[in-house]
Amino acid sequence: MRRKTGIIIIGNEILSGRTIDTNSNFICKELSVRGFDIIEIATIPDLSENIITKVKEFSSNFEYVFTTGGIGPTHDDITAKSIASAFNLELEQNIEARNLLEKHYSKSELTDARLKMTYIPKGSRLIKNPVSVAPGFIVKNVHVFPGVPTILRAMFFEFVDRLFRKNILPEKNISTILPEGTIGGFISNIQKENSMVQIGSYPYFKNNQFGVSLIIKCKDEIYLNKICEKIFNFLLENNGKPKFL
Amino acid sequence: MRRKTGIIIIGNEILSGRTIDTNSNFICKELSVRGFDIIEIATIPDLSENIITKVKEFSSNFEYVFTTGGIGPTHDDITAKSIASAFNLELEQNIEARNLLEKHYSKSELTDARLKMTYIPKGSRLIKNPVSVAPGFIVKNVHVFPGVPTILRAMFFEFVDRLFRKNILPEKNISTILPEGTIGGFISNIQKENSMVQIGSYPYFKNNQFGVSLIIKCKDEIYLNKICEKIFNFLLENNGKPKFL
Repeated sequence: MRRKTGIIIIGNEILSGRTIDTNSNFICKELSVRGFDIIEIATIPDLSENIITKVKEFSSNFEYVFTTGGIGPTHDDITAKSIASAFNLELEQNIEARNLLEKHYSKSELTDARLKMTYIPKGSRLIKNPVSVAPGFIVKNVHVFPGVPTILRAMFFEFVDRLFRKNILPEKNISTILPEGTIGGFISNIQKENSMVQIGSYPYFKNNQFGVSLIIKCKDEIYLNKICEKIFNFLLENNGKPKFL
Repeated sequence: MRRKTGIIIIGNEILSGRTIDTNSNFICKELSVRGFDIIEIATIPDLSENIITKVKEFSSNFEYVFTTGGIGPTHDDITAKSIASAFNLELEQNIEARNLLEKHYSKSELTDARLKMTYIPKGSRLIKNPVSVAPGFIVKNVHVFPGVPTILRAMFFEFVDRLFRKNILPEKNISTILPEGTIGGFISNIQKENSMVQIGSYPYFKNNQFGVSLIIKCKDEIYLNKICEKIFNFLLENNGKPKFL
């Protein structure tokens, strides 16, 4: 039995034609091959009323609902608040999300704008964000993702792997400000020489800074730590400002 | 006052992720600069029930509704029939549409499949199709376009020009099986030497055959005829099988 699914794409920039929505095609493709049937995609503006109406409608019509957009740090990011309203839930700070951000950002970097992203509907589960840390969330049957395509993609694969209980290996994430072009050769070699390890590489752009998030997985945790140390040291020696996420 | 608008994208191939929908971005961009506000895009499958529900909802919620997809010659093209049902209108053969197809196709080419495209909701007005002849239509506030992007684009510009009463000049259409690469130089020269004339060139693919539709406009009809004759003869001499549409 295939899972009936609806997708809600939130963003004025799509409706005005300024931005081309590539997320819905990505989600449709990835979900179709995994046994989901996409029944409808709704593209709507960043308006609370529209988000509330559509989330209620889709949540009761479909088994699974996915949303993209509107969970960033700016004033027009109202998706979390609107979804809380749709389900009559409180919007509250999620401690786990706050801890993630505190671990990743220095005190001066942890602005009110960034902290805003830790407020989500009460009772939500987090969706891990290996690129820019601020998590997505799942509330009832609604799965809430950001709109930035590179971040959405990294989060999406993390999410579906977990959903299908596949590939749940111990993992570590390392971010660096070096581009893929610089670290690619080194990472490929590590991958070639260590077939037990899986390394994913996700380029990002945040805080006016390009960089790469690496996700390293291995069933043997001791081996995983050894490889991560090697990568971390390489990035450090090359002024890549590595950070464990 | 900007016009509140909804777009309905019809097609299983979009929802499965096989095809990327480029039509909605095209329509959003072109309508936004012309004073329309796109409030929602709904992407739905080729299922009568879904089309009927969405057309009713959008037609009553928005001033303007645009649909793409499902008006071709095959069995799964059910948009016209579904829209007729949505408005409790009969689906009947439109004589003007039939005449257009009869003029363009030989008797053996005018198959039942092609004739199916002349059945539209009673009382509809036609939207001209300069590429493959089979027209779109307008019924109440719903504007029905095909899903093939090159055809949609050519029809769309024809339509908006008329809507805004701009640029309504006498015009003729000539189709040819020669590619733009072959006729481009000749057409550019004609355009350069005759600034009174506007020539639009729309490549197409139909009946397993690539080709180009030319739309030639000029306020002076005698001059228009002269230029068209020149283009027609050039195409004839180069085995381009020209046809006036």
